[in-house]
Amino acid sequence: MIVVMEKGATREQVDHMVERIESMGLKAHVIVGTERTVIAAIGEKRAEAKQSLESGSGVSEVVPILAPYKVASREVKKEPTQVVCRNLKIGGGAIGIIAGPCSVESEDQIIKTARAVKAAGAQGLRGGAFKPRTSPYSFQGMKEAGLKLLALAREETGLAVVTEVMAIEDVDLICKYADMLQVGARNMQNYRLLEAVGRVRLPVLLKRGPAATLEELLLAAEYILNEGNPNVILCERGIRTFENHTRFTLPLATVPWLHGKTHLPVVVDPSHGTGHTWLVPDMAAASIAAGADGLILEVHPDPENAMSDGYQSLRFDQFNDTMTKCRKVGEALGKKL
Amino acid sequence: MIVVMEKGATREQVDHMVERIESMGLKAHVIVGTERTVIAAIGEKRAEAKQSLESGSGVSEVVPILAPYKVASREVKKEPTQVVCRNLKIGGGAIGIIAGPCSVESEDQIIKTARAVKAAGAQGLRGGAFKPRTSPYSFQGMKEAGLKLLALAREETGLAVVTEVMAIEDVDLICKYADMLQVGARNMQNYRLLEAVGRVRLPVLLKRGPAATLEELLLAAEYILNEGNPNVILCERGIRTFENHTRFTLPLATVPWLHGKTHLPVVVDPSHGTGHTWLVPDMAAASIAAGADGLILEVHPDPENAMSDGYQSLRFDQFNDTMTKCRKVGEALGKKL
Amino acid sequence: MIVVMEKGATREQVDHMVERIESMGLKAHVIVGTERTVIAAIGEKRAEAKQSLESGSGVSEVVPILAPYKVASREVKKEPTQVVCRNLKIGGGAIGIIAGPCSVESEDQIIKTARAVKAAGAQGLRGGAFKPRTSPYSFQGMKEAGLKLLALAREETGLAVVTEVMAIEDVDLICKYADMLQVGARNMQNYRLLEAVGRVRLPVLLKRGPAATLEELLLAAEYILNEGNPNVILCERGIRTFENHTRFTLPLATVPWLHGKTHLPVVVDPSHGTGHTWLVPDMAAASIAAGADGLILEVHPDPENAMSDGYQSLRFDQFNDTMTKCRKVGEALGKKL
Amino acid sequence: MIVVMEKGATREQVDHMVERIESMGLKAHVIVGTERTVIAAIGEKRAEAKQSLESGSGVSEVVPILAPYKVASREVKKEPTQVVCRNLKIGGGAIGIIAGPCSVESEDQIIKTARAVKAAGAQGLRGGAFKPRTSPYSFQGMKEAGLKLLALAREETGLAVVTEVMAIEDVDLICKYADMLQVGARNMQNYRLLEAVGRVRLPVLLKRGPAATLEELLLAAEYILNEGNPNVILCERGIRTFENHTRFTLPLATVPWLHGKTHLPVVVDPSHGTGHTWLVPDMAAASIAAGADGLILEVHPDPENAMSDGYQSLRFDQFNDTMTKCRKVGEALGKKL
Repeated sequence: MIVVMEKGATREQVDHMVERIESMGLKAHVIVGTERTVIAAIGEKRAEAKQSLESGSGVSEVVPILAPYKVASREVKKEPTQVVCRNLKIGGGAIGIIAGPCSVESEDQIIKTARAVKAAGAQGLRGGAFKPRTSPYSFQGMKEAGLKLLALAREETGLAVVTEVMAIEDVDLICKYADMLQVGARNMQNYRLLEAVGRVRLPVLLKRGPAATLEELLLAAEYILNEGNPNVILCERGIRTFENHTRFTLPLATVPWLHGKTHLPVVVDPSHGTGHTWLVPDMAAASIAAGADGLILEVHPDPENAMSDGYQSLRFDQFNDTMTKCRKVGEALGKKL
Repeated sequence: MIVVMEKGATREQVDHMVERIESMGLKAHVIVGTERTVIAAIGEKRAEAKQSLESGSGVSEVVPILAPYKVASREVKKEPTQVVCRNLKIGGGAIGIIAGPCSVESEDQIIKTARAVKAAGAQGLRGGAFKPRTSPYSFQGMKEAGLKLLALAREETGLAVVTEVMAIEDVDLICKYADMLQVGARNMQNYRLLEAVGRVRLPVLLKRGPAATLEELLLAAEYILNEGNPNVILCERGIRTFENHTRFTLPLATVPWLHGKTHLPVVVDPSHGTGHTWLVPDMAAASIAAGADGLILEVHPDPENAMSDGYQSLRFDQFNDTMTKCRKVGEALGKKL
Repeated sequence: MIVVMEKGATREQVDHMVERIESMGLKAHVIVGTERTVIAAIGEKRAEAKQSLESGSGVSEVVPILAPYKVASREVKKEPTQVVCRNLKIGGGAIGIIAGPCSVESEDQIIKTARAVKAAGAQGLRGGAFKPRTSPYSFQGMKEAGLKLLALAREETGLAVVTEVMAIEDVDLICKYADMLQVGARNMQNYRLLEAVGRVRLPVLLKRGPAATLEELLLAAEYILNEGNPNVILCERGIRTFENHTRFTLPLATVPWLHGKTHLPVVVDPSHGTGHTWLVPDMAAASIAAGADGLILEVHPDPENAMSDGYQSLRFDQFNDTMTKCRKVGEALGKKL
Repeated sequence: MIVVMEKGATREQVDHMVERIESMGLKAHVIVGTERTVIAAIGEKRAEAKQSLESGSGVSEVVPILAPYKVASREVKKEPTQVVCRNLKIGGGAIGIIAGPCSVESEDQIIKTARAVKAAGAQGLRGGAFKPRTSPYSFQGMKEAGLKLLALAREETGLAVVTEVMAIEDVDLICKYADMLQVGARNMQNYRLLEAVGRVRLPVLLKRGPAATLEELLLAAEYILNEGNPNVILCERGIRTFENHTRFTLPLATVPWLHGKTHLPVVVDPSHGTGHTWLVPDMAAASIAAGADGLILEVHPDPENAMSDGYQSLRFDQFNDTMTKCRKVGEALGKKL
């Protein structure tokens, strides 16, 4: 941590900061520059120290040197983590594909979709039973009935079931039916929920919040890891920017950057990331080329009549083409889908 | 709702959309322009219809005409809502000031602060007992012990206690001690929590998420109102933008815009909105000039030793000066603080 | 254009707007909804009408139906435009690669780089002679001496020379040496410069401004096209968002979106789009997978000693690997690099 | 400048960086932390050094300590700069008001407006003669004829004329008629134009680009100051964010922040900053409360028939009310308008 003093900071102010740094059990190292004095604080453990030093008199700013996340860091664990869940393998060289409708709507819908996505090469089935909706007047999901249909679809196809958990009180119920829990973008910093999913044995797919930095995403993962669940998959699904031709802006540099910083696998959601069906296939292929460990895609037998997200869902034939495209790109780069 | 067809959309595609619109119980009105055909759908009730029509073949885009929020809308209730909570009055002409530390840390800290902010003119006391922290390694709050100290401070000063609720399972406990519940920015779209606080009798201060549009904020409020709790206060606390000289960007046009669209009161949090103590007084005054119904401010007896948010907390003397400044601006505009 | 009246707008206000619309030579079509009245204005020619109607009394908002760009639109010209410039072909199925240093620094540097990028498969050579720099104290380019070195490098290698023009007064000079003009991101809305490059015979590579919508980018292109220069290449180079782990956020959905709306070719600049050498290869491959018609990449013989942008420049071996990767992805999708 | 080495950087890499730092004429100071080594480089003069060091092998990041702007800095000149231009005084305790139409449209329009804004208390008259427009099909201004009308309005009223310069070739012409030059947001980083206006004797109102950081704004000002023109006024006019209820997001914390870092005066443009007439009065008052040294406001005799920006222009009566409101707020804070 580097404490930068203001120009003209007094000797007393510098001494005071040295004292404070030492009182935290850190070593202080004063460097007198031509215009400013800076103090290096050595041995830091926690981000807290930074905040506390920032309000010191005469302090201009405090620059952290160490990343605030620990367990998620590649510095702690060099080999990439592979999450395995039935036939779905994500990370460590394996690319996994999770596909399915935004919401589970009926037995017919989910079974048909499961069969179609499996035939096209997916290993995971997504489908929401508990739906976080922007408006209280929107369809809120089939709840347990939806979970049962997902389990039925798994029986039929062997696909791993991935479904969202919105509240702590639903965790146990959902664990009875699902193979992987999804924490949605809106709940990325719902820390109590993160702790709750950190205490179960199922892998967790953690979506990046639309205003979250990657450091915040890793710290959210850290809440889960810290409770003992090592199987966290990070998911880029787009951020909020000024762009209005897409629903969100999908920043694929997230993929190689995270691969450089963490051992956790990274998947991309081009459906939410673009918000328009016609942009999904190209962005799915681009995600694979960027090095993604998997994709999560919205697929629906009849998007026009979907109860949610129809405008960004692929029809079966479109999903098939998308898979073909992604497979080619993957193979060109020596990876199998 | 206006369905805009693509240039060159066929007669069949237009007819199909008319049929779909009518099957939703709406009236369709076709307008053939020089370059494109548009279809007005009359009688819409829900945002759902929009999404569903967007995936129609030949459709370019669907433009909603009505706002998706209902109960929060000024079109439904013309007079501004005033939230009253002991001596704290917010909205309907009254300006209420809530001040206190980020976290409750000790009896001495909270009692001293309560007395100081009361003396300077605040009517509400803020203080976190359950703290949502970006890092799992940060101080997470004193929990129930903190709530007890807040209640003690209320006994001493008569200030209304405002404190954050992070999880459904804490709602009952917090209601035993608090006068007003705060839903934090990270939980603005934690819908289950919104529903839970919608079922209690305490007013709710709902903070805007850093990536939330004002429409999404109003829809979040609608979740609470919809459960029967009419006392919702909206709080602008800054949004995530590319700016890096402040912690968040504080967009004060939120205040008059919301006043034009909703009857709910609007308060501003210049502490989080700037993230730097030295910017708080001017932005507090600017908030009052923009028409805010109240302020929520971080105040600490010794910011340098605060366990959280010291860098954006006011000392007692600074808070006093801020109140003086705000009072002058308020009085100039015919309002009392 | 759809004029949406406020709830409760009077008959007089509606009549007034109808009159105004008709006075613009448009046809007005009134639709009385259950809650609001909207007026469709048919026959619009210009975005101006929208702005003018917006300030009408009782008007809530005005929704444009037609895109404001004309000549750039795919509705006007269906077949994709291919820009050809010596051996560099961009668009219409061809992928062109432009590579070279941020700034021309010396004969040795530019000749070496030209040979290396040609050997690796590039057809264009980039290199700045006039440099727009954030700080007036930074290296501002070699000016004409730099242009001469670029021309020399072309003689040696046959590569097409692409270089930035910052001011109208330099256009003629640069045209004497270059094969393609680049308009930088900071000048995307320098309309007089756009007009000036619209009057020359060289193709123009137009970079997206970091806060520009794609509609604004197309309107900027329209300034050039409108002056008679049909050879405009659009370049995505990243936008300003809250992300701070990359220099800009590179939104690749730009590529398929623009391909849907315009016949102009689209290239991507992953060097500026990420700002970090180690992220460039993956994002270059992802750009090709997203359908880009070309890439523009910073390459330097010795990035550590580059006079600008060293931190995002590829060494020769890194460029070679990047080309190999992109070629594989391109071939997988049936395209040649 | 602090060079942060990667975890595990070798002794050779550290030595190499020390050598590079010393070869730049700086002193290197190595600090070995528990996890990483950092090197403080003392005596830095230029931002360049930072960029160059960033591409060093084993370097994780380089943290600048000194601000890159010099002449604009409050560290160089403590007393605030006051710009005086006829009766218009901005900065150093004085608040100046510039008002007028977006575009000069006719003698009648500009003379009427000049009289009205003068009567209401403005000291400056704005009005565009050369208009930068997003679309090439929009009204581009009256050019010299407009400048003549502005000069005529000055003769009638004594108001100082403020008008935009878009291109270097127009500088001389505009200087013949204007009292203050405006550099628009789109040209904030048109460095050649900045240099050109740096060489004239008129003060320059420099608008912040919608994606510019405040550091970039100060560096743009530095281009002007550096050419010898000391009279630069900084103008906050809103930034591009995800917000869509306003045309731009107006971040008023800009005002106190800039006052802390620079001696240059800061004015606010609430017309562009909000894009909606009805939000302007409150945001004007808030700007004054935030400490702005002036305002620039769009006023038109008949906004509904304005040739540009009607939707954000105040009518005369609305401007009058806005002035009354701002005057009250200013007086409450001990300032005169």
